[in-house]
Amino acid sequence: MSTNRLSSFSDGVFAIVVTLLILDIRIPSVAPARLGEALIRLLPEALTYVLSFFIVVLYWVVHHRVSHLVRSVNGPLIWLNMIWLLFVSVIPFPTALLGRYPLQQIPVIVYGVDLILANVTGFFITVYLKTHPELCVAPLGPGYVRRQVPSYLFTNGAYLLAIVLAGAVPAASYLIYAAVLLWLIVRYSRTREKGRAPA
Amino acid sequence: MSTNRLSSFSDGVFAIVVTLLILDIRIPSVAPARLGEALIRLLPEALTYVLSFFIVVLYWVVHHRVSHLVRSVNGPLIWLNMIWLLFVSVIPFPTALLGRYPLQQIPVIVYGVDLILANVTGFFITVYLKTHPELCVAPLGPGYVRRQVPSYLFTNGAYLLAIVLAGAVPAASYLIYAAVLLWLIVRYSRTREKGRAPA
Amino acid sequence: MSTNRLSSFSDGVFAIVVTLLILDIRIPSVAPARLGEALIRLLPEALTYVLSFFIVVLYWVVHHRVSHLVRSVNGPLIWLNMIWLLFVSVIPFPTALLGRYPLQQIPVIVYGVDLILANVTGFFITVYLKTHPELCVAPLGPGYVRRQVPSYLFTNGAYLLAIVLAGAVPAASYLIYAAVLLWLIVRYSRTREKGRAPA
Amino acid sequence: MSTNRLSSFSDGVFAIVVTLLILDIRIPSVAPARLGEALIRLLPEALTYVLSFFIVVLYWVVHHRVSHLVRSVNGPLIWLNMIWLLFVSVIPFPTALLGRYPLQQIPVIVYGVDLILANVTGFFITVYLKTHPELCVAPLGPGYVRRQVPSYLFTNGAYLLAIVLAGAVPAASYLIYAAVLLWLIVRYSRTREKGRAPA
Repeated sequence: MSTNRLSSFSDGVFAIVVTLLILDIRIPSVAPARLGEALIRLLPEALTYVLSFFIVVLYWVVHHRVSHLVRSVNGPLIWLNMIWLLFVSVIPFPTALLGRYPLQQIPVIVYGVDLILANVTGFFITVYLKTHPELCVAPLGPGYVRRQVPSYLFTNGAYLLAIVLAGAVPAASYLIYAAVLLWLIVRYSRTREKGRAPA
Repeated sequence: MSTNRLSSFSDGVFAIVVTLLILDIRIPSVAPARLGEALIRLLPEALTYVLSFFIVVLYWVVHHRVSHLVRSVNGPLIWLNMIWLLFVSVIPFPTALLGRYPLQQIPVIVYGVDLILANVTGFFITVYLKTHPELCVAPLGPGYVRRQVPSYLFTNGAYLLAIVLAGAVPAASYLIYAAVLLWLIVRYSRTREKGRAPA
Repeated sequence: MSTNRLSSFSDGVFAIVVTLLILDIRIPSVAPARLGEALIRLLPEALTYVLSFFIVVLYWVVHHRVSHLVRSVNGPLIWLNMIWLLFVSVIPFPTALLGRYPLQQIPVIVYGVDLILANVTGFFITVYLKTHPELCVAPLGPGYVRRQVPSYLFTNGAYLLAIVLAGAVPAASYLIYAAVLLWLIVRYSRTREKGRAPA
Repeated sequence: MSTNRLSSFSDGVFAIVVTLLILDIRIPSVAPARLGEALIRLLPEALTYVLSFFIVVLYWVVHHRVSHLVRSVNGPLIWLNMIWLLFVSVIPFPTALLGRYPLQQIPVIVYGVDLILANVTGFFITVYLKTHPELCVAPLGPGYVRRQVPSYLFTNGAYLLAIVLAGAVPAASYLIYAAVLLWLIVRYSRTREKGRAPA
């Protein structure tokens, strides 16, 4: 299978996930005079919507960078890619859960676990590419995987902390998710501009 | 990242948003004999559906023209693009709100605010491209941004007027939204035919 | 705008519409012992689903053939194309209506009117292309539009008959919709194989 | 019609189906304290979600391989392809049914019948290509269809067994669906790596 075809299938999935997210914010059914309050009560859903929108977009950016390294795909790589897409396609569910049950422990955990699973799959793909240079445009340099470990540990460590804190101070978990997202956005914007190796 | 990949991701989002809009018009649950009345009561939803359909399509046309100017994209441009897509992806929500709560102040405001935010982001992208000629196919001419300011001020000024009028005469706000849309459609059809610079 | 970009945007819309149709068939909420009956009651929805699935696919085939004639697009052609897409994007609504209110007059009318509007728009596009040879790969031959009139009149005449009969014998209207669809599928399959001019 | 255009339309449908699946897992409406139990009750829906996710992805992989053999498409091939897409587009319905009515006979049957219909259509396409070498990149070898018969009989035989067992031991049917899926994934991963003829 050509890398192109797998990439554009994946692109389609990312674009659909990111656009479907809005469907989970339901229009309130109230008397017109109470619409203002009803919309304010949707604020948690609106915030988790924005959070997930950018997380999915970020996964798309990361996916794009990884797929740029790949010359051809084989069976295992296709299925690793699909497992990654599975955890991304699931995102509307924890997003809606987090929005409908704000500041509760379980939704924070479900959300974090899904992101960690997606990240672990993404990391496995990098390792797989490193050990299968015949699939890559150019063999990945000796430090390629190692250079990504700190950021990988930091991101998932932060998500783990958010999960641990979910019972006691769920608000802190929200802040962690938002802060990690911002950090990743800044990080991915910078590496590109400096023309560094894809991270 | 190639402009192409970002464009086709964005195209996907526009196509999905425009197609999802219909899902918000729910089939009424009434006795068959009362189906006629029930459908007539859906008229506000049908009208806002058509309005938003063409607004999203128009954003797609605008997006397409802007992306035609771009040779390569960097981090900030990707994220500006995504913020634009965020405000476009949100459109099904204010659309459904406007349809379910016709002639009410709050939906008119929410709708207008979303459009203004999308437009402001689009304008920022133009300014960013102007100040980063290295990203463009050809540097944008000296008057490029300036030439767009009147139409930009007119469109968003009209939306602002619609928002201000929403409490007193919401019907006027609807007319403003529809009139601006028609004006923009005519405008974008004409500039293309005359072969003028993209606006 | 390149024909390609407009085509792939339109392709996206067709693919999404055709796939969204299934969302309107709701899973019944009954005791497991009564699931069989509940599913049998979904038969009208299943049949209209299949009908609309192939109608949307057929529009996609027709759209594809028309876009093959086009070299470049201008403003009016973009907006004619979008009006066509509007009537196609709407299809999930009359489909669900027809499925939930089987053998009723109004859904048959709504369904037929939407198809006729889509067809009329498609016909306008053909006429527009005929009168704007500069947009076409090659000028359309003298009889190009004329040759399509009989099939156009037949299809829409049949839909009109279905609408007229909807009050008295709605079952006949269903048969007409299904028969026209079959006839069109056979017709479009044949013209292609004989390598005739696109119809 | 070019193979490319039909392929990318089909790709779009596969990507949308796979992403829509998540919409059928509804967020429970319970008191926050009971959210844990409510989510555990969603386990059957989560499992059928994962099952269908990979089944759709697998159909995409199979579709991709078949389309690689095709040089040009004619009417009948387009419609055979669309019938295949119909049975794939339907998948969200039996998936949700299986998830909401776990361990019941009817959903297991509906699910299995849809998969068998999709497979039969896929097989018909292979036979059609075999007998229409003018549509293929290269004529399919003498044993091409025959080589696929065992795997085809095994897969659909297993599904048939799942259907037959659905009344007595529905849990066995679930295991059969999962086992066949795993077997197909392994099989499709291997054939690719060995560079064998597409299966």
